[in-house]
Amino acid sequence: MKPSIPKGTRDFSPVEMERRNYIFNTIKDVFYRYGFKQIETPAMENLSTLLGKYGEEGDKLLFKVLNSGDFMKNVAVEMQCIASLQATQICEKGLRYDLTVPFARYVVQHQAEITFPFRRFQIQPVWRADRPQKGRYREFYQCDADIIGSNSLINEVELIEMLDEVFNKLQIRVAIKINNRKILAGIAELIGQADKITDITIAIDKLDKIGLENVNNELLAKGISQNSIKLLQPILLLQGTNFEKLAKLKDILKNSKIGLKGIEEVETILRHCGLDPQLPEKQEITCQARNDGNSIELDLTLARGLNYYTGAILEVKALDVQIGSVSGGGRYDNLTGVFGLQGISGVGVSFGADRIYDVLDELNLFPTQSLSGAKLLFATFDENGFNYALPLLRQVRKNGIPAEIYPEPAKMKKQMQYANDNNIPFVAIVGDEEIKNQSVMLKNMTSGEQKLVVKKEIINFLI
Amino acid sequence: MKPSIPKGTRDFSPVEMERRNYIFNTIKDVFYRYGFKQIETPAMENLSTLLGKYGEEGDKLLFKVLNSGDFMKNVAVEMQCIASLQATQICEKGLRYDLTVPFARYVVQHQAEITFPFRRFQIQPVWRADRPQKGRYREFYQCDADIIGSNSLINEVELIEMLDEVFNKLQIRVAIKINNRKILAGIAELIGQADKITDITIAIDKLDKIGLENVNNELLAKGISQNSIKLLQPILLLQGTNFEKLAKLKDILKNSKIGLKGIEEVETILRHCGLDPQLPEKQEITCQARNDGNSIELDLTLARGLNYYTGAILEVKALDVQIGSVSGGGRYDNLTGVFGLQGISGVGVSFGADRIYDVLDELNLFPTQSLSGAKLLFATFDENGFNYALPLLRQVRKNGIPAEIYPEPAKMKKQMQYANDNNIPFVAIVGDEEIKNQSVMLKNMTSGEQKLVVKKEIINFLI
Repeated sequence: MKPSIPKGTRDFSPVEMERRNYIFNTIKDVFYRYGFKQIETPAMENLSTLLGKYGEEGDKLLFKVLNSGDFMKNVAVEMQCIASLQATQICEKGLRYDLTVPFARYVVQHQAEITFPFRRFQIQPVWRADRPQKGRYREFYQCDADIIGSNSLINEVELIEMLDEVFNKLQIRVAIKINNRKILAGIAELIGQADKITDITIAIDKLDKIGLENVNNELLAKGISQNSIKLLQPILLLQGTNFEKLAKLKDILKNSKIGLKGIEEVETILRHCGLDPQLPEKQEITCQARNDGNSIELDLTLARGLNYYTGAILEVKALDVQIGSVSGGGRYDNLTGVFGLQGISGVGVSFGADRIYDVLDELNLFPTQSLSGAKLLFATFDENGFNYALPLLRQVRKNGIPAEIYPEPAKMKKQMQYANDNNIPFVAIVGDEEIKNQSVMLKNMTSGEQKLVVKKEIINFLI
Repeated sequence: MKPSIPKGTRDFSPVEMERRNYIFNTIKDVFYRYGFKQIETPAMENLSTLLGKYGEEGDKLLFKVLNSGDFMKNVAVEMQCIASLQATQICEKGLRYDLTVPFARYVVQHQAEITFPFRRFQIQPVWRADRPQKGRYREFYQCDADIIGSNSLINEVELIEMLDEVFNKLQIRVAIKINNRKILAGIAELIGQADKITDITIAIDKLDKIGLENVNNELLAKGISQNSIKLLQPILLLQGTNFEKLAKLKDILKNSKIGLKGIEEVETILRHCGLDPQLPEKQEITCQARNDGNSIELDLTLARGLNYYTGAILEVKALDVQIGSVSGGGRYDNLTGVFGLQGISGVGVSFGADRIYDVLDELNLFPTQSLSGAKLLFATFDENGFNYALPLLRQVRKNGIPAEIYPEPAKMKKQMQYANDNNIPFVAIVGDEEIKNQSVMLKNMTSGEQKLVVKKEIINFLI
């Protein structure tokens, strides 16, 4: 009988909401500082917009919305023996699976109103019919920022600096890992397996998780020759500072035009981020981009699962917690092509709100004081108390101080319990004596101290 | 081929989002000031939670989500001749239809963690398979605040003052209309048709729209006697100040216990809101509750469609625009009963974000200056420009000023057009001359003025 919610979904309590708002507001503030503009798209998209965009597996994980009204009306009579009934016959709409495809659809649909380059951000929930497990939900928020309609590497620089600033503001120390799909293509070329680049990047992506030997075995299983795998080893295990790695790579990939292009792109980006190959103190692997404890690292093992990146690949790892990446992104060259608009290149990043939540929680980095909760509770014990307290309450709020009144003339203990449970730091007790003295008994709920304060002084005590 | 979105849904562009955020942030600030705490619930609820809660019509308007995986697997083989296939056989989940039922479900599910009275607010989209038309969407945001777990009329007072303050902050002049379901019950009793109260309130609700004669005809059609309708007339047409009306009603309903109770409740609420029956200047029909141009008015024609109100009924009308109500709410006595938790009374209000948007738009009350957009665009023309401008850009942002750099060395005209299209008020032009002089040419995009500003002075010009 007890009500419940669908598996893989969550209720967010006031405490969780306050913490989530802290994360989203911090990120939004930085987005605005960088000139990004918010959009929102509908939760439901036409299935035709969504199907085929996330691979076969993704199609299965789309939540489909039953046509309203007589949902069978479009099903042909002769098909009415059920085994063959397809979801698409009775569902025209599906729930948003990510923010990227709806954004691409948005750009094509509204292209006439958009001035490119277009810096948009979007913070909305997405839904996936994945098997729920720890840290994996069927409804979760994505938080994306993209710059679309410009090839310039300055955009990559802007996004990297923005990543740096978001995590700086959240006080999470991170390594910002960078790679370039063109370097990976160059590597595939070098070892003579250009057609196997997807297999190679997927395998490389697992290096951290399963180790070199297993990656090599996986490559072998994918039909990559022993010889090619051997050629790949020095590259996988490249050591040194960012610029040292790039110098060695330049030599290794000297015959690959695309590989050299990728190297040049990474160099340009790093230089514009403020890294200086000439200064030895900035040549550490963990180059301090902006002196805030975060680092930028060229990481050739970084490939990311997604196939659509064409240039820079970015990933952010928290340094003080064992957890997957807290943010990631990259350059894609033809996001809107599938909807008929060619030649639009973009670059974007996505923040993993749930992971960031866990990091802040584990490191105790959430603000200890409630940012939005009431600072004062009026406790009264009869109708006279209400008559006396309500104008005071108005006065307190007019001064911008969040405040409440306990709405019933309940026992003192109950009202104090309410203040405690709601983390309200001060209680203004209004009894007959206080009314006679035109004052309140102000109780500090942390220290337990009580003090008689005349009406006009209340505000001063709270600011 | 051009992509589209499902009918009745909307994309929100950056300009619309900025305006919507202005509305929601204003409301949220007031919610926090009044001690309300935010929660969120999942977009999908179990259909068992939703079905039967909104009447037969509501059940039909629920969007149902097809079971993932083999959606036919629970359909019995013998039922596999399709005509009889029911949505509930293939759908276990539905999309949130309002915020009230999910809130009731939340309270019951989390009752052990909640300290009552519980002041919660919730701002999330809801979905209804209604026929779309002007101003009616299939996806729209609701914005609700409720105080649950307390019978005290102080809660009604708090909500009325909060309504007053929200619209004051938005600069929309409103009349806050108040009625009480118990008064309506008393009236039904008086005319000897206590069982017809629903019909009577629904008819009364239409008085504004269709006029007295049609209301009377409608009452007749519902089986209410000519005599009863006659008894109803003086009540429908009651005139005077709030307290004059209440005095007359007290006499008319002197034999109805429930009616007198309702009158007493309204009186108590009005008095606690600061209205004073003794002061003649506060006896106008449009009593100035808090001297900000808004009024509170007892309005006996106010019944609201919804059946579940048991005490106060509230509705807010904009005074300077012809539009339906922009907010409404009331007292309900057994919201959580349907989920097995009895005896929890609550009172709540809901803000109509789309209507408020239209009012602000029509009255030109949206902030004219973008609150969140970039204040400065750096315009550069080559790699030297980027090298010079990027550190300046960092400096500007570090001072909290939202800023951008045009990411390509495009023609001046194009970059200026970008600034104009994005409402960026200043452009810092960086050419060879400016670099030589360690300055920028700062262009005011509103006045067209240009001024050479040395690097260190840029911030001062923008703050």
